[in-house]
Amino acid sequence: MQGQMMHRPLQIIDMLRYAAQAFGQEGIVSARVEGDLHRQSYVQTLARTAKLAHALTRLGVARGDRVATLAWNGYRHLELYYGVAGMGAVCHTINPRLSHEQLLYIIHHAGDRLLFLDLTFVPLLEALLPDLPEGLRLVILTDRAHMPETRFEALCYEELLAGEPDDFPWPELPEDTASGLCYTSGTTGNPKGALYSHRSTVLHALQVPLCQTASFRAGRRVLPVVPLFHVNAWGLPYTAPLSGMTLVMPGPNLDGPSLFRLMEGEEVFSAWGVPTVWAGLLAEIEAQGRVPRGFADLVVGGSAAPRVMIEAYEAHGVNVSQAWGMTEMSPIGTHGTLPPRYDHASPEERIAAKCCAGRRAFGVEFKVVGDDGRPQPHDGEAVGELYVRGNSVISGYFKNEEATRAAFDDEGWFGTGDVVSVDAEGRLVIRDRAKDLVKSGGEWISSIDLENAALSHPGIAACAVVAMPHPKWDERPVLVAVAAGDARPTLAEIRDHMAEHFAQWQLPDDLIWVEDLPLTATGKVSKLTIRERMAGYVLPELRGDRGDSA
Amino acid sequence: MQGQMMHRPLQIIDMLRYAAQAFGQEGIVSARVEGDLHRQSYVQTLARTAKLAHALTRLGVARGDRVATLAWNGYRHLELYYGVAGMGAVCHTINPRLSHEQLLYIIHHAGDRLLFLDLTFVPLLEALLPDLPEGLRLVILTDRAHMPETRFEALCYEELLAGEPDDFPWPELPEDTASGLCYTSGTTGNPKGALYSHRSTVLHALQVPLCQTASFRAGRRVLPVVPLFHVNAWGLPYTAPLSGMTLVMPGPNLDGPSLFRLMEGEEVFSAWGVPTVWAGLLAEIEAQGRVPRGFADLVVGGSAAPRVMIEAYEAHGVNVSQAWGMTEMSPIGTHGTLPPRYDHASPEERIAAKCCAGRRAFGVEFKVVGDDGRPQPHDGEAVGELYVRGNSVISGYFKNEEATRAAFDDEGWFGTGDVVSVDAEGRLVIRDRAKDLVKSGGEWISSIDLENAALSHPGIAACAVVAMPHPKWDERPVLVAVAAGDARPTLAEIRDHMAEHFAQWQLPDDLIWVEDLPLTATGKVSKLTIRERMAGYVLPELRGDRGDSA
Repeated sequence: MQGQMMHRPLQIIDMLRYAAQAFGQEGIVSARVEGDLHRQSYVQTLARTAKLAHALTRLGVARGDRVATLAWNGYRHLELYYGVAGMGAVCHTINPRLSHEQLLYIIHHAGDRLLFLDLTFVPLLEALLPDLPEGLRLVILTDRAHMPETRFEALCYEELLAGEPDDFPWPELPEDTASGLCYTSGTTGNPKGALYSHRSTVLHALQVPLCQTASFRAGRRVLPVVPLFHVNAWGLPYTAPLSGMTLVMPGPNLDGPSLFRLMEGEEVFSAWGVPTVWAGLLAEIEAQGRVPRGFADLVVGGSAAPRVMIEAYEAHGVNVSQAWGMTEMSPIGTHGTLPPRYDHASPEERIAAKCCAGRRAFGVEFKVVGDDGRPQPHDGEAVGELYVRGNSVISGYFKNEEATRAAFDDEGWFGTGDVVSVDAEGRLVIRDRAKDLVKSGGEWISSIDLENAALSHPGIAACAVVAMPHPKWDERPVLVAVAAGDARPTLAEIRDHMAEHFAQWQLPDDLIWVEDLPLTATGKVSKLTIRERMAGYVLPELRGDRGDSA
Repeated sequence: MQGQMMHRPLQIIDMLRYAAQAFGQEGIVSARVEGDLHRQSYVQTLARTAKLAHALTRLGVARGDRVATLAWNGYRHLELYYGVAGMGAVCHTINPRLSHEQLLYIIHHAGDRLLFLDLTFVPLLEALLPDLPEGLRLVILTDRAHMPETRFEALCYEELLAGEPDDFPWPELPEDTASGLCYTSGTTGNPKGALYSHRSTVLHALQVPLCQTASFRAGRRVLPVVPLFHVNAWGLPYTAPLSGMTLVMPGPNLDGPSLFRLMEGEEVFSAWGVPTVWAGLLAEIEAQGRVPRGFADLVVGGSAAPRVMIEAYEAHGVNVSQAWGMTEMSPIGTHGTLPPRYDHASPEERIAAKCCAGRRAFGVEFKVVGDDGRPQPHDGEAVGELYVRGNSVISGYFKNEEATRAAFDDEGWFGTGDVVSVDAEGRLVIRDRAKDLVKSGGEWISSIDLENAALSHPGIAACAVVAMPHPKWDERPVLVAVAAGDARPTLAEIRDHMAEHFAQWQLPDDLIWVEDLPLTATGKVSKLTIRERMAGYVLPELRGDRGDSA
């Protein structure tokens, strides 16, 4: 029997309409590419979004058309999020840190009709120009006064909007209508597209604040350093307006001093981003001896936060929580809010609990599949690959049947490629990316665990552990590290330091010092690049020395 | 174009499954009809819910069947909420305060197959017995030791559950599947049924904590005095587990001293219910000179909280917020969380802001329709009847086409029967029930405004304003009041006190003292009953005196 309840489609534009009514005085503060700070309320944002939808209609954009962005975090980018989706088209956010080859692949594969770009990316577009699809129209996200000389024909964003009406007859769309498109930064093969829907986006936005309760407070300010050009900036463009928070958009300058200044000036309460960014901010905090005024909550995702980083921020009074997710999951899968029983736990226990990826968010189901293909118990011990299911998880890759076939199991669950355990409370511990595990003598060694242990040595600023081939053991771990100061510890010292937590056979066989670690387009350490750079590398034992560890 | 996202049905049982995984140590504390306090975790609750679903299956309950409850707030009632809906049947909660005639109408109209009742309601069932439908099976919510002698055949709840497996293969149901049924306590005509769905219930549960942020804190305890037998106890059976709160269930004793003792003993953080209950608790608080330990948040709904009540609780350090809704809305339509700009407002301004019904919740849309049938602006001035739309609003009444036809406008919006204004921030002010307005000389007078003003006089403990017929003016307001002490103020004194806020012609023409005000089955003042009792009443002017107000 069916219930007798109204069925209203879940729609993205309704979140901005709600914010404009319920939190009309909150809005967006943006550090602009033009160099200044810009402020507008959600009421103004809704009006400009309506103007944009009119302009897009005039330019011939129809339902289902892809409209691309190449932009930093700012109010115009947010207007594109809502305006494009609101009219029934698809907002395709492009990560400008990808290679030219990947960028061109994505633009062609998506079939973009329009591309909106920040001033910063004019040179990038000029480089891509010869290979762009015919008929792709370009719009520069600025006003007439700032329009640059370009080698391509481009429209001016503010001119497009000027004179358009400030309301729009937003269509009633079926909630499964596509709304957004984001390609994974795939370390192998071509990037693959996740095609979000209105339903998946709204449900994701409703689920996240329910779990990550410490970060959401009406009237406070939240800083997404996580880019709008990648996985919906973890949903903040939706959850912030829904919960009555003002967004502080950092624009292009993400170094520690720039972030500190912006956060201090705007009294940012909560900040979200990847560990590499927070390492930069931490250096500035330690230089100044204090955190920016009002800063109380840090959400770390994208890759695991090192324990030392969590400790350092918590020591400054900042509540740290980790979230874990994937482009294919909208992206949030877990949240780091501690269960109630930690209210009276020791700082030690609290930090330990914060070092896992967190507990599953409502709406995301977990299945841990062992080597034997069987579901493993959620007992904190059994290890396997994590499969996920839920309304915010993709059901396939955009126009890519081959990748789709490879990504799902027979029951339709999506395989994350992460090797994990889950405890009885639903707490996820990511042991490794399946492809980053070190397999030595038939046993698995977690590269993440080794990295965390090495990082707790004061002589190491950043590091990565990679597996190197070995004829007898199959693979052996090697530590690639950036020194924290001038005095470089020896491999023996590092091994001694790590030996507390590991068996001897699990410790790295070699230590290679580097100036810095290569990053992926989303700010994660690129082990793929490290492995490529180490082509031809031979382990100490095989090259006839045992380093200073013998 | 469709998105490529998984489509998982929104299901009620998933909320309890989530709580059992994410907040396994939280659960339910129940003051039982048997007289003791009972405690169980969400893990135990999920296991018992599985046992219940097995038992229901064994008793022949099939999808779509209606299973009725006549019970106070307690863990077994909550198990019925989840177990019945989880297996695809419909949990039909019955309000025991309705008249025998209404109860029988409802049970027959719903076509209930089973009825679960608390020990308290055995005499009620015995009174209804001759007219109950044939084949209706009765289950008493207790264990064997407490099973009473009854004039009807009855099963024992705990015996039903004993021996059943503690997990159940919960079916995957389409999200529009009916899950719950609740009849309005309709003051005119037969009660009308709202048939909730899994989708409407889950979305309602996701939307409420997003707005009512001050009331939801993982690890804290929440007391629903609002009954589970009426409009889903405002959603708390779902929002509490979802947000990691423990439910404290008051059972049958809702007087001030009982509530104070329970709240004190269990350190209740947030309490939800109707104003009449909070008046009783306030008397106990004032007698003791303090609030129960840990009590910080009060949510008032069902009818408007008098300003003096809000002031009294706030003076004791309790954050008061009002919510407004209807059985037909699942029920919550507005929430009382103040917008950020009140953070630094004066206490005076904050109290004034708290006296309205609050702002619309995300997911509920408002349309105010004026006398001319046209939508009125949301400007805080224009007044009209409120129409609502959203996923948590009914699309019709259960098996009642006539009532359905009368309740919706041509665009499919549901007419609430409330006369309101809405300001630009979405803040709702309920001017009156359409049928409670006083129409005098072609102008409308709000009975609610008059009652609030009269209540602020120290000599009045409770009151109601009703319209009485007048040959010239059409209707005139009459104040029916309960005295606060022995000294009864005169009508002239009350009118003087109220004159600050009203024109002379708006003030009541008469004052009638009563011992107490009649209440409806949901604890609201029954103006219908007052009007019935005043049959034959003649206004002072018409009976040749002008009272002491002349």
